[in-house]
Amino acid sequence: MRRVGIVDTTFARFDMGKAAIDELMTHATDIKVVRRTVPGVKDLPVACKLLIEREGCEIVVALGMPGPEPIDKMCAHEASTGLIQVQLMTNTHIIEVFVHADEAESQEELAKLAEKRTREHAYNVYLLLKHPERLTEMAGTGQRQGWKDEGPLGKRDVKRKGGQDATKHGGAEAKAVTAVEGAVHRG
Amino acid sequence: MRRVGIVDTTFARFDMGKAAIDELMTHATDIKVVRRTVPGVKDLPVACKLLIEREGCEIVVALGMPGPEPIDKMCAHEASTGLIQVQLMTNTHIIEVFVHADEAESQEELAKLAEKRTREHAYNVYLLLKHPERLTEMAGTGQRQGWKDEGPLGKRDVKRKGGQDATKHGGAEAKAVTAVEGAVHRG
Amino acid sequence: MRRVGIVDTTFARFDMGKAAIDELMTHATDIKVVRRTVPGVKDLPVACKLLIEREGCEIVVALGMPGPEPIDKMCAHEASTGLIQVQLMTNTHIIEVFVHADEAESQEELAKLAEKRTREHAYNVYLLLKHPERLTEMAGTGQRQGWKDEGPLGKRDVKRKGGQDATKHGGAEAKAVTAVEGAVHRG
Amino acid sequence: MRRVGIVDTTFARFDMGKAAIDELMTHATDIKVVRRTVPGVKDLPVACKLLIEREGCEIVVALGMPGPEPIDKMCAHEASTGLIQVQLMTNTHIIEVFVHADEAESQEELAKLAEKRTREHAYNVYLLLKHPERLTEMAGTGQRQGWKDEGPLGKRDVKRKGGQDATKHGGAEAKAVTAVEGAVHRG
Amino acid sequence: MRRVGIVDTTFARFDMGKAAIDELMTHATDIKVVRRTVPGVKDLPVACKLLIEREGCEIVVALGMPGPEPIDKMCAHEASTGLIQVQLMTNTHIIEVFVHADEAESQEELAKLAEKRTREHAYNVYLLLKHPERLTEMAGTGQRQGWKDEGPLGKRDVKRKGGQDATKHGGAEAKAVTAVEGAVHRG
Repeated sequence: MRRVGIVDTTFARFDMGKAAIDELMTHATDIKVVRRTVPGVKDLPVACKLLIEREGCEIVVALGMPGPEPIDKMCAHEASTGLIQVQLMTNTHIIEVFVHADEAESQEELAKLAEKRTREHAYNVYLLLKHPERLTEMAGTGQRQGWKDEGPLGKRDVKRKGGQDATKHGGAEAKAVTAVEGAVHRG
Repeated sequence: MRRVGIVDTTFARFDMGKAAIDELMTHATDIKVVRRTVPGVKDLPVACKLLIEREGCEIVVALGMPGPEPIDKMCAHEASTGLIQVQLMTNTHIIEVFVHADEAESQEELAKLAEKRTREHAYNVYLLLKHPERLTEMAGTGQRQGWKDEGPLGKRDVKRKGGQDATKHGGAEAKAVTAVEGAVHRG
Repeated sequence: MRRVGIVDTTFARFDMGKAAIDELMTHATDIKVVRRTVPGVKDLPVACKLLIEREGCEIVVALGMPGPEPIDKMCAHEASTGLIQVQLMTNTHIIEVFVHADEAESQEELAKLAEKRTREHAYNVYLLLKHPERLTEMAGTGQRQGWKDEGPLGKRDVKRKGGQDATKHGGAEAKAVTAVEGAVHRG
Repeated sequence: MRRVGIVDTTFARFDMGKAAIDELMTHATDIKVVRRTVPGVKDLPVACKLLIEREGCEIVVALGMPGPEPIDKMCAHEASTGLIQVQLMTNTHIIEVFVHADEAESQEELAKLAEKRTREHAYNVYLLLKHPERLTEMAGTGQRQGWKDEGPLGKRDVKRKGGQDATKHGGAEAKAVTAVEGAVHRG
Repeated sequence: MRRVGIVDTTFARFDMGKAAIDELMTHATDIKVVRRTVPGVKDLPVACKLLIEREGCEIVVALGMPGPEPIDKMCAHEASTGLIQVQLMTNTHIIEVFVHADEAESQEELAKLAEKRTREHAYNVYLLLKHPERLTEMAGTGQRQGWKDEGPLGKRDVKRKGGQDATKHGGAEAKAVTAVEGAVHRG
C-alpha cells in the first residue's frame, strides 16, 4: 500500500478532503489515505510535514479555500511558501489545491470549482505517484485544474480527460479511459 | 501534564494571553501553560521556538495585534512567515492569532473581536492537542474565529459551538457541549 | 558580564548605536556591549549572526534607518526577514529597531524619533535579558517605541515608563522607577 | 556523460522541455538529459531537487509559463523563491526559464518567445557546465533571452550569437560559431 | 592573500565586475579576486555560495543591474532574499550592488552610477575585510553609494571619501587619504 496524505481545513466551505479521497480511490486500490484537518491554510505546511515524516506518506495533497480579502491572499502566499519549504525539506511532492473565494460568481459555482479542481489535482497526485511519465506526455499542453484546459498555443483547446469527468464512469472504466489517454498522448 | 506555550506582545492593546489561558483552562485540567511576552509580532517566532525546544511545549499559541498601516501589515507578514518556519523546524503546530487594528470600527468592538478570536483559536489548540479527529469532522464547514462562521457553501450558516460561547457554561459543561458537538458532526 | 551585540549602519543618518549603548549602560553595569557597523540594513542579518555565534552575544540590537522609496521599503523587508531567520537559526532574540525616513516631517523630528525608539527598544533588550517577567506585566498595554504609547483598548492611554524618559534620572533612579512600574502593572 | 536535468509543466502551453533538450543536443554530445514534468511552476522546486540529489544532475533547467493574473505572478514568485532555495541547499545551478503569458500580443508570438528563451537559456546551461569563462567574456553586455539583446550602455546593441539562431545551422556548425563567438569576446 | 569573490551578470549593461576588481586592487595588494559571471541576478546566490564554500572567499561582491519592469523588481527581490540566505548559511558577508535601470535618466548617467556605486561598495568590502572599525567611525553618517552622501540628520551633508574619487589618485595615495579619513572620523 502506498500512503498518500491529505490535509484540509475547517476554514474551507467545501469538503475538499472527501472529494480528494473519493477521486484517489477511483484510480487506485493500493493507496492508503491518511487525512488530517487543520484550522486554516497557514496550518497546512507543518501538518503536511508530519504526514510525511511520521506517517510515511509518499506524497501529500494540501487543500484550502483562501478568502477574498488582501489579508487572505497574503495568508495563502505564506502557506504556499511554507508548502514549498516542506517539499524541499522532505524531498516529497505536495500538490497544493487552493480555491480562492473570489474565483466564482456564486456559491454553487464555487463549490463545483472546488470539487473539480480537487479531483483533477488528486488525479495529478495519482500520476506523480504511479505514472509520472504520463505527465511528460502532457507537457506544454495547457492543462488547467477546475477550469477548461487552455491547450497548447496556436492549436484548438485540448480538453483534458481524467479528473472529475472520469469519475462519472467509476473506477475501472476511469482507469481504462486513462490508459487510452496515455496512448493518445503518446500518439 | 501537556505543556502549551503562549506568547503575546506588549504592542497589543488587549491582554490576549490572559484570554487564551482562561479558555484553555476551561477545556482541560491536565494542561500546563508556559507564557512569554515579547515587544512585537516580529519577536514571536523565536520566542515560540524557545518554548518548544527549551520548555517542552507540544503546541504554541502566538498572539498579536498588528497595527493598521502598510508597514504593520508587512511586519505581520514577516512574523507569519517566521512562525511557519518555526513549525517546520520543530514539527510542532503554532496557532497564530492575529487581530488587525483595522478589522473593527470601535475600540470596544476590536476588544471583543480580540477576545473571541483568541478563545476560539485556543479551543482549536485544545482540539489539535487532544481531539484532532474533531477538526476533521468540521472540515469544509467554513469556520471563522472571532466572526460568525460562514458555513459550508450553499447551505445555511452553521454557527460554531465551543470557543467563547462555550466558556459561559464553565469547564465541565463546556466539555459536555463539545462532546455533543462531536456527535453532531459525526451524525 | 552578559554580552549584548549592537549592529548599526553607515547608511543611517543618526548614530543609533551610540544611543543604544548609552541606554543599556544606564540600566545595567554587568553588560558588555560588542558593536559592529555595516553599510546598510541588508548587511545586518549576517553581522548579527556573527555576534551571536562568534562573540557570544546573548541578544542583539539591529539598528537601521531605511530610506523613503519603495526600493528602500523592500530592502527593509528583506533585512527583517533575514533577522527573523537568524533568530531561528541561533535561538536568540534580535530586537530590530528600524526608523523609516518618512516617519517624521523634519530632520529634527526624525532624529528625536530615532533616539527615542532606539532607547526604548534598548530598554526592551534589557528586560528580555534580565527581567522577562516584566514584559508579561506589560502584555496587551499598547506599548509604542518612539511614539506615545496607545495603551490598552477602551482605557485612557497609559504612558510608558523607562526608555528615554527614564534616562533623564540616571541609572539607579531609572531602575527604581522600573520597579514601581512593575508593581503598578501587577496591582 | 554529464547529466543535465530538465523539468517542465503540463500547465505551460508550449513544449519547452523538448526545445531545451533539442538545443542542448545541438551543442554537446556528451550530455545526458533527465526529464521530469510536473503540473505547475510551484511543483518545480522539489522536482529539481530530486533530479540533483537522486539522479545526479549537475545542473537543471526549470521551465514554466505562468499565467497573466496577479495570482499567477504570485505563484511564479513562490516558485522562483523555491528554486533559489534548492540551489543553495544543493550547491547546484538551476536556470529558471519562465515565459509570462502577458509578455506577447499573440499566441504565435508567445510560442516563438517561449522557444527562443528556452533555447538561449539552454545555451547558458551549456556554457555554465562546460565553458563558464565564456560567460565572463559576456559580462555586462546586456544579454536578453528571448528578446533582442540590449547591449552595453552607450554602445550599439550587440546581437548575441548562439541560442535559437545557432541551431539553424545544426550542431557542428553551431559549435564552430560558438568558438568564434568566444574568440570575438576575447578580442 | 585574502580571497575576495566577485560575481556579475551577462544581463547587466555595464562591466561592474571589472570596476569592482579595479577598485579593490587600488586599496590592497594582498587580495586575490575570484570572479564568476552568471546570466542574471537570480543566479547570483548559488554562485556566491560556491565561491565561499569551494573557492575559500572570505567575502563576496554580488553585482547586478535589474531591469525597470515590475517583474525585474521581483527578480531583484528574490535575488536579494537568496543573497541574505547565503550569508546566513556561510557566516560570510556578501555585499550586494544592484543598480536599477530606472535610477538614471540617460544611459550615460546610468553607466556612471553603476561604476561609482560598484567602486564605493568595493571600498566597503575592503573595509569589512581589513578595517571594520572604520565603518563604525562612519555609523549614522548617511553614506550613499553612487549618489552624494546625505550626511547625518540636521547637519551639512558630509561628502564621503574613498570609493571612485579616491581611485583618481592611484593606490598609494588613496590609502593615505583613507588613513586621514579614519583620523578625521576619530577626531
